[in-house]
Amino acid sequence: MSLPIDFYFDFTSPYAYLMSEKIDVLAARHDRQVNWRPFLLGVAFQVSGVPVFTRNSPKAPYLMRDFDRSARFLGVPYSLPPNFPIGTQAAARAYYWLQDRHPQQAREFAHAVFRALFTAGRDMASPSEIVALLTEHGGDGEALAVALSGQELKERLKAECAAAVARGVFGSPFVFIDDEPFFGVDRLPQIERWLASGGF
Amino acid sequence: MSLPIDFYFDFTSPYAYLMSEKIDVLAARHDRQVNWRPFLLGVAFQVSGVPVFTRNSPKAPYLMRDFDRSARFLGVPYSLPPNFPIGTQAAARAYYWLQDRHPQQAREFAHAVFRALFTAGRDMASPSEIVALLTEHGGDGEALAVALSGQELKERLKAECAAAVARGVFGSPFVFIDDEPFFGVDRLPQIERWLASGGF
Repeated sequence: MSLPIDFYFDFTSPYAYLMSEKIDVLAARHDRQVNWRPFLLGVAFQVSGVPVFTRNSPKAPYLMRDFDRSARFLGVPYSLPPNFPIGTQAAARAYYWLQDRHPQQAREFAHAVFRALFTAGRDMASPSEIVALLTEHGGDGEALAVALSGQELKERLKAECAAAVARGVFGSPFVFIDDEPFFGVDRLPQIERWLASGGF
Repeated sequence: MSLPIDFYFDFTSPYAYLMSEKIDVLAARHDRQVNWRPFLLGVAFQVSGVPVFTRNSPKAPYLMRDFDRSARFLGVPYSLPPNFPIGTQAAARAYYWLQDRHPQQAREFAHAVFRALFTAGRDMASPSEIVALLTEHGGDGEALAVALSGQELKERLKAECAAAVARGVFGSPFVFIDDEPFFGVDRLPQIERWLASGGF
């Protein structure tokens, strides 16, 4: 089996959510695993000088429309969360906490966060909602709540963000296949051909 | 026959060049004409607050790679011009001058500009090279040279840029089908489905 694909994303990114519903199946068709690596777009944007997205951005009306249309195009259920965009520190920290302790639960939890945010409009910025979501999925919410209030997990996410930026990640979703970088869910057709042909 | 598609672009945009090699054929398959509308990205970027692309931009290494890979993916000959990115005032003004006087030549001339820039590395920022290119293609280079030095054509392009920005164009290429906006050559699959289905 070839090396795993790396999938960098911020949980608040609709395009990352769309990618999250596609990348594992696509990778599996080509005998690849996927490493999921949440990071914070705000950190990457500080480095690249790109203004952080807000609902008042000049591109916002187009993007709102394109999120929705791209979801329909890809056949993924989607609705814009009421507080979009949201801060995703708690979600990303929770992911790494699970990944380090119960890696078999981490992927399912990441899907649950994306779907709670983009299909049910739940407030995934809230640490208590993150804890509640994990509990609903049979995880140890109490232990996560303790970890989320500690310094260690904050340092863990900070290091992950720094590593992502150092690798050249400047947006979400961002995928590496054998060090070949692909930015955006609209690169899915190129990713598919790359996996099928070993490059092109 | 349905309404024409509007294709907004800056001649310096590699993604617009790729679109220029695809959009007419795609439109024709669905009984559509295409209006080509060059504008200046610098004007749109002033409005949107996006920093103008330079070779020192944080995203530049990725974009250089993606230009090349996207051209291979779409089967379009491409090489990065030596002075990329270039100013395209002369090229865009020449286009509208032709469009107003010899519209049947304007499309062919626009293709010639894109191909001279992205396959032959010619300096399409230079008014004298733009004039020479038109002469090579059997056009009236002398009359264009006079027009390029006048105020009227500058005002013409300024008005086109203002109209593009007013319509919500913030990048290149930008396509409208019956007022539905599509940004980027990576929206080709969505454009194709939209044309086939009348929306989705």
